[in-house]
Amino acid sequence: MTEPAEARAARIVARLDSLFEIGRAAGTNRPGLGEGEQRAHDLVAGWMRDAGLDVSVDRAGNLFGRVAGSDASLAEVWTGSHLDTPPDGGRFDGALGVVAGLDAAEAIGRSGGARCTIAVVAFRLEEGPRFGRGVFGSRAIVGELDDDEADLVDPEGITLGQAFAALGLGEALPDGPTVDRRPACFVEAHIEQGPSLAARGAALGVVTSIAGMAGIELVFTGRRGHAGTVPMELRADALAAGSGFVRAAHDVARGLPGAVATIGRLDVSPGATNTIPGRVTAFADLRAPDAATLQALVDGATAAAGAAAGETGCRLEVVPRWRYEPVAMHPGPAGALRRAVAASGFDPAELPSGAGHDAAILAEAGIPSAMLFVRSDAGGVSHAPEESTGIDAVAAAVTALETAIRELAA
Amino acid sequence: MTEPAEARAARIVARLDSLFEIGRAAGTNRPGLGEGEQRAHDLVAGWMRDAGLDVSVDRAGNLFGRVAGSDASLAEVWTGSHLDTPPDGGRFDGALGVVAGLDAAEAIGRSGGARCTIAVVAFRLEEGPRFGRGVFGSRAIVGELDDDEADLVDPEGITLGQAFAALGLGEALPDGPTVDRRPACFVEAHIEQGPSLAARGAALGVVTSIAGMAGIELVFTGRRGHAGTVPMELRADALAAGSGFVRAAHDVARGLPGAVATIGRLDVSPGATNTIPGRVTAFADLRAPDAATLQALVDGATAAAGAAAGETGCRLEVVPRWRYEPVAMHPGPAGALRRAVAASGFDPAELPSGAGHDAAILAEAGIPSAMLFVRSDAGGVSHAPEESTGIDAVAAAVTALETAIRELAA
Repeated sequence: MTEPAEARAARIVARLDSLFEIGRAAGTNRPGLGEGEQRAHDLVAGWMRDAGLDVSVDRAGNLFGRVAGSDASLAEVWTGSHLDTPPDGGRFDGALGVVAGLDAAEAIGRSGGARCTIAVVAFRLEEGPRFGRGVFGSRAIVGELDDDEADLVDPEGITLGQAFAALGLGEALPDGPTVDRRPACFVEAHIEQGPSLAARGAALGVVTSIAGMAGIELVFTGRRGHAGTVPMELRADALAAGSGFVRAAHDVARGLPGAVATIGRLDVSPGATNTIPGRVTAFADLRAPDAATLQALVDGATAAAGAAAGETGCRLEVVPRWRYEPVAMHPGPAGALRRAVAASGFDPAELPSGAGHDAAILAEAGIPSAMLFVRSDAGGVSHAPEESTGIDAVAAAVTALETAIRELAA
Repeated sequence: MTEPAEARAARIVARLDSLFEIGRAAGTNRPGLGEGEQRAHDLVAGWMRDAGLDVSVDRAGNLFGRVAGSDASLAEVWTGSHLDTPPDGGRFDGALGVVAGLDAAEAIGRSGGARCTIAVVAFRLEEGPRFGRGVFGSRAIVGELDDDEADLVDPEGITLGQAFAALGLGEALPDGPTVDRRPACFVEAHIEQGPSLAARGAALGVVTSIAGMAGIELVFTGRRGHAGTVPMELRADALAAGSGFVRAAHDVARGLPGAVATIGRLDVSPGATNTIPGRVTAFADLRAPDAATLQALVDGATAAAGAAAGETGCRLEVVPRWRYEPVAMHPGPAGALRRAVAASGFDPAELPSGAGHDAAILAEAGIPSAMLFVRSDAGGVSHAPEESTGIDAVAAAVTALETAIRELAA
């Protein structure tokens, strides 16, 4: 007897509520490789055991819950997402894909399983804010951690390597891939985090490609001085340079189709009301749907920073922090998602993803990957406590996800 | 036998070095009503006792060291400055006026004293950064604390009232003036904090007037959202508004003679690299040499903030934080300083002060006040560890200060 989709959706939302309370302030705060993310992993691991899944953790701290398939010679089918959040994040981003994937895997397991083993994965540290670089868990799985990865520093001065060790995950980061055998495919359910599906009246969408993105740190160095005693014409105000850069970078993005530029963090030093800023560090998050546009955006923003520094008498240092090229989703799992959405009675909308995801890392590494986007309500707001998805869309998502996984694992 | 001026200057610089080590990081950090300021007060109180001064603390925590005069019916002559610092400040700002004043008072006391009682004062919390409002001690002395004073909050969330109580200064801030009788006059020695005296080849200068200043907090509220999923044209980026304001406020100041505008602090919320800023709080420090220019600067900057908010789809809240009108120095004590500088063999340069000082508060309250500026070296940099004054200028300053106090107290 099949459980009504509404009951499944209610259980999923209740679990998202439980996760939301971990690290709760205005929104939820579970920075990757932190104590809150660990508590979320522990909570989900318990749910996995209750659901009859075989639980394990790889050398990067990624959580796996498996439903053994009838043919152990076949490569696995993966689903999942991440459990960390940006500062004051919402309850759906990441967590929805893990909890819905678990619900789908449990249902398949309880009904006798599939030919392929199914794994629900919670990837570590997907969000970039803590260390200035994200998608740690998925990159570790495919053996693509960077040489400087352990030395990345969070705003409190803790290195990624220290945070990793503090969780008991080991003194050194894993070297090489953390899984012996790559999965046959990966499907990730995720809240859209934008207004497109709601605008089309669609509950679900299938992602065509994931935007490329570049993270650049720009350090403007001027001369600090007393706010009252240095005439305007003798100043080299680092915030004048930083402010000029912000406006110019936004203008560059507006001139390129589909491109966006966000300066989400701007640190002013020394940060005293009566001292001319001597140093400003701006973090630019630049994204574009195709490689040529991304390059034009990076070039334009870097040139704008140089111009802003030059006209204010400041020096500029440019530090590239991360770069991911745009990547297309794979027709195999994407087709299964499309058929599953259609079978649920919904029109399978197609759309690109402006956000980065673990699916982009696996896809770039050659693992056939696809994403099921679930409608954002609340105007598409995300990375904020108001982030929301109606229960109808959650119900549609878990039904479609289960159907697609059944097809892929058959 | 008179001690050579060089020996006095060396002692003063050694004491400034001792104070500099309290709260030392890159520069010194002794925020007002904090533990570092208290340690500085305790250290100076010890030096005062060693020098034979009568030490007391008023209800606001201001430190007094007195040399009793021969005629107790006469009003006192005050000298001094402050011992708190901005973040990573230097060794001269404030401390020089206290330590040099103490040295002058000690010399007068050891040589038999004067007719008037001389008091060396260390005012509490002169710098604005900690609570967004400064000159606390001097305002308390003349009974001009604001109604909301105890509720001001520092970046750690500590209220001014809590900081005050934590130092054992009392559960409530003083109500009304903290001294029974106002002094006859006040002279404050202070590092210039600018390049003017050095440019003129002068060691010392006498201040003509102190600039007016307004502190305004501007809160821009936009819509936070995901850095990858919201098209540029649908954004209300609070940092776009804040950045536009910074550039426009600088332009307004450049268009007004003698005016300066500094945005020394800009807080971006939530401050995550992959989240569109939903709120930006900018703190503007606006200064001008006369009342009309100050008003034009405040009006222009406020209008610029409104325009920046309007063109980016953000809301603006304007919170006036402090305002001090320009104030002229008094010809009585200023004349004594001029004569003392000339008697030392220096040309008494005259100049306005772009920085605010406790002397402005006492002057505004009707106490005849004047300031002796001491040359800034290192290009006039201040509110920074590089802040510097050559020992020749320190020697000239203590000699002139003692001479002027002797004349005023005779």
